[in-house]
Parts: sequence; C-alpha cells; structure tokens
Amino acid sequence: MTFLQNIKSPADVKKLNKKEAEILAGEIREQLLDTVSKNGGHLASNLGVVELSIALHRVFDSPTDKIIWDVGHQSYVHKLLTGRFEKFSTLRQYEGLSGFTKREESIHDPFGAGHSSTSLSAAAGIAQANKLKGSDAYVVAVVGDGAFTGGMIYEAMNDCADKDLNIIAVLNDNEMSISKNVGGMSNYMSRFLTSKKYFRFKRAVERGTNKIPLIGRYIATFFRRCKNMAKRALKMQTLFEDLGWNYIGVADGNRIDFLEDVLNEAKLSKRPCIVHIHTTKGKGYAFAEEDPGSYHGVSSFELETGVASGSKSFSSEFGKYLCEIAEKNPNVCAITAAMSSGTGLDSFAEKFPRRFFDVGIAEEHAMTYSAALATEGFIPYFAVYSTFSQRCYDQIIHDASLQNLHTVICLDRAGFSATDGATHHGLFDVSYLSNVPKLTLYAPESFEDLKNALLECEKGENVCAIRYPKGGECGFPKDAVQCDGFKYKDFGKAGTKAPDCVVITYGRCAFFASEAAKKLEGKFIRVICVTKIKPFSIDKIKHLVEGTKLIYLPEEGIKSGGFAMQLTSLIKENGLFEGSTVKINAIDDRFVPHGSADILYKLCRLDKDSMAEDIISGL
Amino acid sequence: MTFLQNIKSPADVKKLNKKEAEILAGEIREQLLDTVSKNGGHLASNLGVVELSIALHRVFDSPTDKIIWDVGHQSYVHKLLTGRFEKFSTLRQYEGLSGFTKREESIHDPFGAGHSSTSLSAAAGIAQANKLKGSDAYVVAVVGDGAFTGGMIYEAMNDCADKDLNIIAVLNDNEMSISKNVGGMSNYMSRFLTSKKYFRFKRAVERGTNKIPLIGRYIATFFRRCKNMAKRALKMQTLFEDLGWNYIGVADGNRIDFLEDVLNEAKLSKRPCIVHIHTTKGKGYAFAEEDPGSYHGVSSFELETGVASGSKSFSSEFGKYLCEIAEKNPNVCAITAAMSSGTGLDSFAEKFPRRFFDVGIAEEHAMTYSAALATEGFIPYFAVYSTFSQRCYDQIIHDASLQNLHTVICLDRAGFSATDGATHHGLFDVSYLSNVPKLTLYAPESFEDLKNALLECEKGENVCAIRYPKGGECGFPKDAVQCDGFKYKDFGKAGTKAPDCVVITYGRCAFFASEAAKKLEGKFIRVICVTKIKPFSIDKIKHLVEGTKLIYLPEEGIKSGGFAMQLTSLIKENGLFEGSTVKINAIDDRFVPHGSADILYKLCRLDKDSMAEDIISGL
Repeated sequence: MTFLQNIKSPADVKKLNKKEAEILAGEIREQLLDTVSKNGGHLASNLGVVELSIALHRVFDSPTDKIIWDVGHQSYVHKLLTGRFEKFSTLRQYEGLSGFTKREESIHDPFGAGHSSTSLSAAAGIAQANKLKGSDAYVVAVVGDGAFTGGMIYEAMNDCADKDLNIIAVLNDNEMSISKNVGGMSNYMSRFLTSKKYFRFKRAVERGTNKIPLIGRYIATFFRRCKNMAKRALKMQTLFEDLGWNYIGVADGNRIDFLEDVLNEAKLSKRPCIVHIHTTKGKGYAFAEEDPGSYHGVSSFELETGVASGSKSFSSEFGKYLCEIAEKNPNVCAITAAMSSGTGLDSFAEKFPRRFFDVGIAEEHAMTYSAALATEGFIPYFAVYSTFSQRCYDQIIHDASLQNLHTVICLDRAGFSATDGATHHGLFDVSYLSNVPKLTLYAPESFEDLKNALLECEKGENVCAIRYPKGGECGFPKDAVQCDGFKYKDFGKAGTKAPDCVVITYGRCAFFASEAAKKLEGKFIRVICVTKIKPFSIDKIKHLVEGTKLIYLPEEGIKSGGFAMQLTSLIKENGLFEGSTVKINAIDDRFVPHGSADILYKLCRLDKDSMAEDIISGL
Repeated sequence: MTFLQNIKSPADVKKLNKKEAEILAGEIREQLLDTVSKNGGHLASNLGVVELSIALHRVFDSPTDKIIWDVGHQSYVHKLLTGRFEKFSTLRQYEGLSGFTKREESIHDPFGAGHSSTSLSAAAGIAQANKLKGSDAYVVAVVGDGAFTGGMIYEAMNDCADKDLNIIAVLNDNEMSISKNVGGMSNYMSRFLTSKKYFRFKRAVERGTNKIPLIGRYIATFFRRCKNMAKRALKMQTLFEDLGWNYIGVADGNRIDFLEDVLNEAKLSKRPCIVHIHTTKGKGYAFAEEDPGSYHGVSSFELETGVASGSKSFSSEFGKYLCEIAEKNPNVCAITAAMSSGTGLDSFAEKFPRRFFDVGIAEEHAMTYSAALATEGFIPYFAVYSTFSQRCYDQIIHDASLQNLHTVICLDRAGFSATDGATHHGLFDVSYLSNVPKLTLYAPESFEDLKNALLECEKGENVCAIRYPKGGECGFPKDAVQCDGFKYKDFGKAGTKAPDCVVITYGRCAFFASEAAKKLEGKFIRVICVTKIKPFSIDKIKHLVEGTKLIYLPEEGIKSGGFAMQLTSLIKENGLFEGSTVKINAIDDRFVPHGSADILYKLCRLDKDSMAEDIISGL
C-alpha cells in the first residue's frame, strides 16, 4: 500500500498523477477484498466503481460539490477516499462504518441512503438549494442501472427537466439492462460527441444564433435537429434528451482518464446532464466478475475459494414451499421487485418461468400489478424485504385491500437486518400493516409455521401478509402446545395456579423469552408465541393469562401501533386482567443502528438476559 | 335526449352511426353539466373525454376488453355508457354512484382508482393474466398527462417494454405539459403515420425480411431506422419508443372518427402501444374551457354564472399563514405534488415563485426533495392531501426522519373527505405517522391552532406534520382552557368532584363531543381537545382525568395504531385510572364509503347524537 494509506481527504486524490491514480485503484481493490471477505458486504458493485470514485474526487470538490451514491451500497471506495481508511476495518460492525452512506458519518456524505432510487430527488433538492443561495457548486448523483427502474428516478428527472440546475447524474450501467448499445462503437461515438470541441461548437452556435431574433432561433433549432438526427440515427440514447436532460455517453467507466474527460464535459453543461458510463461489476476479482449476482451482497467468505457460507433460511424455505404450492395450484404466481435471489425465488423462477415476474426495483408497481393479477383469479405472492415494502403502503391500502383483492405479501428480513443497519431493519411492518383494513398478518416463528401460513394464505381473502426474519429458525421449543394462531410453552413450576408471568410475543422474541424463562428457575413463566397477529382474538388466550401477576410484551418492532400496544389497549378496553401489570418492551420512537444481531438484541434489551431482568423486576 | 337514455350498455353505443354518435356526445355534455352542477365533482376532465369514451366503447368490447381510467375521476361518461345512466343523478351521494371507478359498482370497472398513476400497473397485471389464460382481449389504460408525471407509470412502462402484451395506453394530453408538438402539423403526421396502409406496410416488411436469416434482419433494421429518422427528425415522440413501446399520435381527441381510427390501429400493434391524443379540458362549457384548473374538481355551482360556492377553509388559511411566515423567514419553502390550488398554495406561488416548487404528481420525490432542501438549511413545507401522503411513507422514514432532517408535512383533507369517498378519506395518517420515530404531529382544531402549529414547526426539529380537515372550522368553544398541546372545556355540573366522563379526542370530533356534552344536561362532561398528538405526555392531563367513571375516546381515523389506542395502551401500561372504563370509538378495520360529511359522521357513530348515546350507555 503505497498510496491508499496516505489518502486523508479528496485533496490527496487530486495530487496523484495518472499512473499513481491507477496504482491507487489496484490498492483499493486489495483493500475491498480484504475487508469485505472478513466483514461481509457489497463486493461486486464496489469493485466496479473504483475508477469512478477516484475520477469523481479528482474532478469535483467534495464537500463543496456534493456526491450522492444511490442506495449507498457502492460507496466503500468513496469512504476510503474521504478520510475513512483508518476505520475501514470496522465496516458494517457495531459503532463502525456503515455499509451505506450516512450523513452523521462524514461531511462527504451529503445524503444517506439504503433504499433505491432516491439520489436524484436528493440531488435535485440540493441543487435547488444551491441555486437559491447563488452557489454554482455541482451535485452529482451516481445511479446504477437497476435503480433506474425505480419510479422516483423518473419523477426527479421529470421535475428537473430543462431547469438551470448544476446537477449531474452518472448512470452507472453495469448489467446492460438499460442500454444495449454498450460497446466499441458507442464508446467511440461518445469520445467524439463529448469532445470539448464538439460541445463548445454546439454551445457557440446556439449562443450566436439565439442573438438573431426569430430567424436565429430557427437556425439554432435546425442545428440541433441535424445533431439529433445524427445521434438518433445511430441509436444513441435519446430518451434522456427527450426528458429534457443533456446526455453524454457511453463511456468506459473503468478508465480513470476517460471518466475525467466526460465528467469535465458534464461540468460545462450548466443544466441537468446524464453521464452514461459502463462499468464491469466485480472488476478485478475473477469470482465476482463471473457471477456478480451472487456477490452483490455477501456474508463473509473465503477469499481464495470465493465460497460464501450459507445454510437453511426462511428465504430458502419460502422458495421451496412456494414451489410446492405452485406445483399443485396453477394460479399461484410469484412477484419480486428485483430481489429474486434475496427472497429465495430463484428456483421458482426456474421451475415456473411463465408465472414468475421480476418487475424491477419498483415496489409500488409490484403491489398494484399483483392486485391486478388477483382480479383475474390468480394468486400473487409478492416477496419483498420488510423495509422495502414501506414503499408500497399506499398501494396495499388503495389498490389491494380497498378492492378486496386476494394478494399475498411475503415480508423477508422482518425485524433486525443486523449489519445492514437502520435503513434495512424491518421494524415498522407490524404497525403499518395492522392498520390496513381486512388484512391478515402472520408471523411464523419456525419453518413449519411458515409453511402453514403460506398454505393458509393460498385459501385466504383480501391481503394476506407473512413476516419472517433474516436467517434461520431460532428454536422455540418444538413441544409447545399448538393452538389456532399461537403456540405456548410453560416453564418452571407449572401447576394449577396462574403463571407468575405470561410473556406474549411473536417471532424471534419468543425464542429469547423461552431462554429467559429457562434461566428463571423457581418461577412459573408461560411464553405465548403468536403466529397470527391479525386478526387476533384475545378470547383465545384469556384462560392462559388470567390471574398472572405480570404480562410481559417484548417486541422486535416499533412500539407505536405494534402488537404489544394493540394487545395492551385491548386488555384495558375490555377491562381484562385487572390485577395484572402490563410491561411493553419494544423499539420506542427511535432507530436502531447496524451491528451483529447479538449486539442489537442486547442493545434493545430483547436478549434473554435483559428479558429475564425485566421479568424479575416486574414480579 | 334522444340517444343517451337508450344506452343500456356499450353494445348500444356501437349501434349508432357517426352522426348519431356526435349527437350523443352533445347529450352527454348536457347531462354532465346538469349533474355536476348539482352534485359537485370533476367537470372539466369529463367534458374533455366525451368523444374518447364513446370511441373506446365503439372500438373495444367491454367487459371482455378492459378499460381502466387512471385516477378514475374522468369516468363519468364511461359510467353513462355502461348502464349507469339511470343512477347518474346519485353521483357522489351516499349509496349512489362513486365519483371514481369502482369494481363493485360495475363489471365495466375492472380496476378502481382514486389515486393517480396506478392504471398502467393494473393494465399490465391484467394483460399478463390474459396472456397466461391464452386470451387475446385488450386492456386499455387512459392516463392524463398529469398522471404521467407519477413514477408508477414509468415503472409499469419499463416493466412492459417489449413484452407481447395486448396493452394500450391512451395518453390523454389536455394541458400540453408533456408534448409541445400538439397542433396542426402533428395531427397531420399522425393521420399519415397511423394510416392502415403505413402500418401494414411496415409489418409486412418486417415479417417478410425477418424470414431471410441474418441479412433479412439487417434490412428490417434499416427500414426501421429510416422510419425512426423521419419521425425523430420531425421531433415525434421517441421517448416512449425508446422505452420499448409502440407509439401512435398525436391525434385530435375530440373527434370520434379520428379516435376510432387510431384506436383500431393500436389494436394491430400486438405489443404495448401508446396512443397519444390531445383533448380540450372543459370542452363545450365556456367557463370550464377558459379556466379548467378551477373546474378540475368542484363543489356544486350555479350553472349559468359558473360561480362555485366557497368560504374560509383550513386550506386557504394555511396558505395565508405560510405566506406570513415566509415573509419573515427567507428559508421557508413550499412544495406541492401538483396540488397547488387544492392545498391553498396559489398565493404563496405568486408571492414567492423562487421558493415554490410544484414537482408533479410525485409524492415520493416531493418528500425526498424536501428532505434534501433541509440538508441545506431551508425549511420545506410540503403540502399534500392526507390520503396521498400514504405514497411517501417510506421517504418520510428513510429520507427525512432517519437523517433527522427538519421538514414540515402539511396534511390537508385529514379525516373524512366526504363525497370523494374511500380512496380520499384521510383516515390513516395518525396511525402511520405516529410510528415514525422522532416525528412531531399536530392536529389543529381551529385556524388559530393551525397558525400556532405552523409557527412551532418553523422552529421544530426532525419531521413535523400537521393534519387538518377539508373545509372550515367547526367551533369547539373558544373559551376552552388553553394548555400546552391541548385545550379543554367542562360541560354540565362542573364542581370539585371528578367529571362523570372525560372525552379525549382531536380535530372535528372535539366539536361533536362538545355538542354531545351540551345535550347531556345534568352530567359533568369534560372534553379534552388534543392539538399535539405526538409526542404526548399523559402526565399533563392526568389531573383532569383522575377519578372519572368513563374515558371516552372517539376518533375520526383508523383504530389500529391511532391516538385512542395509543392512549389506552399508555393508561394500562402505566396503571393509571384503574377505576375508569375506557371506551374507544374509532374506524375499526374497515373502509368508509362516500357520502355527505353529515351522513358519514352518523354512519361511523361520530356525530353528536351517537356520542351522547355512547357516553350515557357507558356511565
């Protein structure tokens, strides 16, 4: 490491000559492989943007100029170049660097992210603010071609069109999903079209001719049309220009010198400008280059073999069970918003290609599309991460539930998403889904619960939702008493008298509660693990709770509107268990940072030790 | 009325000759003016699509072919043509026809709406279902140019691109906001380009040449490029073609014969096709043609003068106060998602054009854009209807609150939206905003409360939200005792003893509760009107509640996660008021239909009489 360790700020990146910058790129790749193989994270996308990150910091002056990374998962190189090299080994670890951009982490992260397609809206707002302030600083948004399928990008492009804002969107095309013209000819054309000579000629003509009133405008229009005809005949991207943006591209995004050229050109644009580049995802690491999909987001892996560690998870079991259901029922469909692998749908896609729909990073569309399939008698299972499902809250209400359409939402990554952090924890779904009229909500604790929920949803009505965590089963006792919509297990000195404490919860918390109960020898603790959250009849558990001293309600979710709050309200409203104290332990009005699951459970006092303490102090 | 009254189904529309169809159009306009002037509703947009609606039902076979109206507010003519003439006088009235499309109302409404930009997702899902079933029926979505600014449209277009789906999107361009090429030349071109001869020639060439392997493909490509060059040189819309859709247009959308031609052409497309038409909003009614904005959505008005009835409303007062604040504070900005008039921002737009941003029907973008403005020290007030704010739930959490950005969301039409119905009632905001960490939520009952809330929000932190109803003040007693975050008034035999009943609520319900209290002579009723819902400290009202027999919590909002539920849970959790009964009266797990506000309050038992009954039965 000759250069990387000496990069304290973007100013140091600017000092390097061309050769040195290229050596730096190599050093960065080594660092990325080293850290991500240990800490997990997004590898392929970061390997692809090494040169882009370097070029951006050589051409622009952060933090005066703002660089915004869409989603933020590909910002590792940016972090290495903006004074975070020393802390880089703490990536994705508790109190370490975030795996995404984060405002509180650095002045060079002007707008944090985690969810897709927000960067252009952020850039638009900042560019507008600059204009109001009279600043001519640049705002650059780097957007992958995947994120370009999200509607927000279009809304922002539409809003910025033809405004005099210093905004540059770098379209980082690494999977050829938008343009099919990436290649030698396009690169050649881009070198030509973006040459300073051409750009200056065009502007001079426009400026000059605009001074001649009326006639001048026609001449300018004529010139523009000639250029358009030439470009369009060659099938250069006109879509962005039609939307009112300048367009430069396609440039080789793994060449620092080319990138500096096109970015410098874009600076001359003085109005919204798209810089279309092509990068190779996974660049420089053979395993990732060959199979970028698998290395999009990875857990820690062995550097030499490239093998990621993996085992049975709720995602994989979901995929397996859904295939079994689809085998028997030809109306079952699967929908994903660009998360086929993540949600476990790859085998479904292979077995039932006609009934599998990946609609792009477009949760709103995905939900309404699902509702529409339901109008024709199909049963759509829309698999989506809990945190991303927040995007289609309105569509769940307005398109599915209000029209009483039988759709199934399968919420993966419900609860803590551990090292991905605050933007990825699924802590809101129980609250916001519970307020959707007529919706049925399941919270399986085991794979068997999941299978049962999927089967019940097949026969269900209106919107059905199933929430399950990242990773595998924890292990609530298999000998628990199974009831309709819940199961329970007594710990300690069970007998004819009422339990000392009844814990009512769902998901992973039920396991931790059972572990806590085991610790509290001498106490009679009953743990009720609810598997169907809505509708929930308190009558069914009444006899199990009656007479207890403490009703303890831990919840791996936001408190307001959550299950614990619903239950507590129900208890008071119905005048039940008047002698019992109710204690809620949920995430109260705050966000939860990134860190290992163990740490997060402790942090939120949802681990077995904290629960045991809570129970004891409540008795 | 020679023809209209005899149209029992679309088959009857098909029977008319050209001349008769034109007479029918005139009759429909008369009917629209007559009914909308009495019942209120969307006038201009419906007057604009008379010919389109007729042409659609002459060219397509509903309900086999599906016609989906985006937003659904312009479906009145469609209703008149699909067997709903007899019931048309009940438009927007309780138990009468909905002002939007509605599945349960007619087999000719395949997908209901109310919110913008969903139709293409719905059409995509239904077209895909048709394909799975082997049906070659058509699905037609009619989308206004306004709705085209919403991201969902783009997500759906992107998803459908190049798929062999029988889907036709009619882009109803009535404000020239998308295309500037509407006019004689374009119309002429469209007549040429869409003539059957041209279309058949093109397909024949492609079919023929594709049979010759390799070379043939190049010839086909050459032909296509020639056509593209010609069209593009003439600046025909290539944007849609770049997105992988066929494109036909621009056609005169107020000529039945032209429309039938282009729609018949679109039927030959066999893949997603945009039909771009131009219509005149308000066509045939001079007042509305001249000022379509004001007649977009109207209350009942006088037919001859065109004067709409209006008075001071929360919207108008919001606009006025915000101007006052912006006068003093140069950092205050206003953002709207195409609802400048509706939210009362017109005068702000006029006075502070540089600080006013209408971003299109794009709530997601609007929220993130607001958050971005906040990063630069501006104070964005984003004014949006409560029901539409559901669209940016994720952006409120992920972009604003998580980053601790000081933004203000002003939620108009919170609570019942009366005659607009289920898609427009703002019944979810208290629930879903309460679960956003660190958010502050105000619920002004009076204009003065509103003003105070706006001022507090100026100095606030993180996300601040203010919710207020459609229409004006109701009139909770002005002599109520003002406290921090609430006000209260005692009714009946107040004295040293505790009240018989304490009502705790917010907004309009506080007024109705006060009216109910007045009816219950001989009872000591205390009505607490909360004006700051979150954060809410129960300590502050403890002494006002202590010792009462009944705590009554009416709420014009969904029960799950609502204020009443939060409060009830808090009471139980803290072991407060153990001798008191708590009674919640909120909208429990259901939608509320359209109807006059009076009827809806009665229906939901939130009127003064029902409240009085509830209180009496609880004492």
